[in-house]
Amino acid sequence: MKISKLSRLSGVSVPTIKFYLREQLLPPGTLTARNQAEYDETHLSRLRLIRLLTGIGMMSLASVREVLAAIDCNCLSPHRLAQVVNRALVPDHPMPAASAAAYDAAARRVGELLDEIGWSVRPDAPERESLVRVLTALESLGVPVETATFEPYVDAAERLAVRETTMQSTAGGASAVVARMVLFEVTFAVIRRIAYTHFLGQRVGRDDEPPAKACE
Amino acid sequence: MKISKLSRLSGVSVPTIKFYLREQLLPPGTLTARNQAEYDETHLSRLRLIRLLTGIGMMSLASVREVLAAIDCNCLSPHRLAQVVNRALVPDHPMPAASAAAYDAAARRVGELLDEIGWSVRPDAPERESLVRVLTALESLGVPVETATFEPYVDAAERLAVRETTMQSTAGGASAVVARMVLFEVTFAVIRRIAYTHFLGQRVGRDDEPPAKACE
Repeated sequence: MKISKLSRLSGVSVPTIKFYLREQLLPPGTLTARNQAEYDETHLSRLRLIRLLTGIGMMSLASVREVLAAIDCNCLSPHRLAQVVNRALVPDHPMPAASAAAYDAAARRVGELLDEIGWSVRPDAPERESLVRVLTALESLGVPVETATFEPYVDAAERLAVRETTMQSTAGGASAVVARMVLFEVTFAVIRRIAYTHFLGQRVGRDDEPPAKACE
Repeated sequence: MKISKLSRLSGVSVPTIKFYLREQLLPPGTLTARNQAEYDETHLSRLRLIRLLTGIGMMSLASVREVLAAIDCNCLSPHRLAQVVNRALVPDHPMPAASAAAYDAAARRVGELLDEIGWSVRPDAPERESLVRVLTALESLGVPVETATFEPYVDAAERLAVRETTMQSTAGGASAVVARMVLFEVTFAVIRRIAYTHFLGQRVGRDDEPPAKACE
């Protein structure tokens, strides 16, 4: 198919497709004339994956590049692939560091928490640092950071992870594994936001007018 | 304090602070000389909030602006504030629309699912559309989208929401409510990724070498 059809079927504009081609996120098509190339289903599904990762997965292009490299090398187990995706899902601009003392204390507590749970987490996994940063921030906002605070999180995470890893399969190859992983995460995040608003409404009373854009 | 100290304490560079001032995300300081202004604790905590929202919350500046307006108007209940935050957390670039037929079918199913659960969700809540999009994408990847598929999600979301809305309080004002809401979400997302990798490793075998940056 021509680039215009590829654009129509994928919902991605021609200039953006050309940008992805220049950035080598999308492999080149087959040249059919000096200035014309043919694209096929592999280009279409690659484009859809890129949009999934940058759109709903909110990944930077640098992170997308790493995930695509991991998919293309075709040499990683699903477990290793999951580590690459997890790293890519961490925002590029972390929160400003808390005070060194608060950070160290939180790092120790995160280490103890993970040891207690017994999940294997690599010492250099970016999730460790993310957890330290969010916990220090929560603490500075008056939320106590104790093992008990996170028990329901650990419980829920275990339930979902057991279920999702069972629903994972190698069907569709590495790119489908990655797409399902990102989609499961977003699905739960959305359901969770709905639940949060509902239960907050129950607790504090509900306002059912449309939320004002601003209040001036 | 001077802008240089504000920068040091917040971990945000002076050019970025100037950018936030120009964009009116940060209120101006008090002029003390023709070219010098004094900033105080309110500027520091506002800067920290902006970094939380753009960094770990991955919000666009436009979304940050809406959230700050909602905080500043001081007229929204926590329930309404949660709706504004939820809308801001939805990525600006949604996934390309699936086929109209697949979309409509998924929209119907999402409506039924939400009715069954009995949570109140506004008809124009952006979470509805997000859910439709992720479910259509999952379906196209071979994951069945049935009520039963999402029961564990609904269960887990309910547990967490009940707990978190109880842990919320008006302490620290609207900005602390927003910060805690974003941090709770990220905390769970991180714990969930750790669990996912752990249980996937149990299921498919673990590779404990560092994940290769790329495999060339």
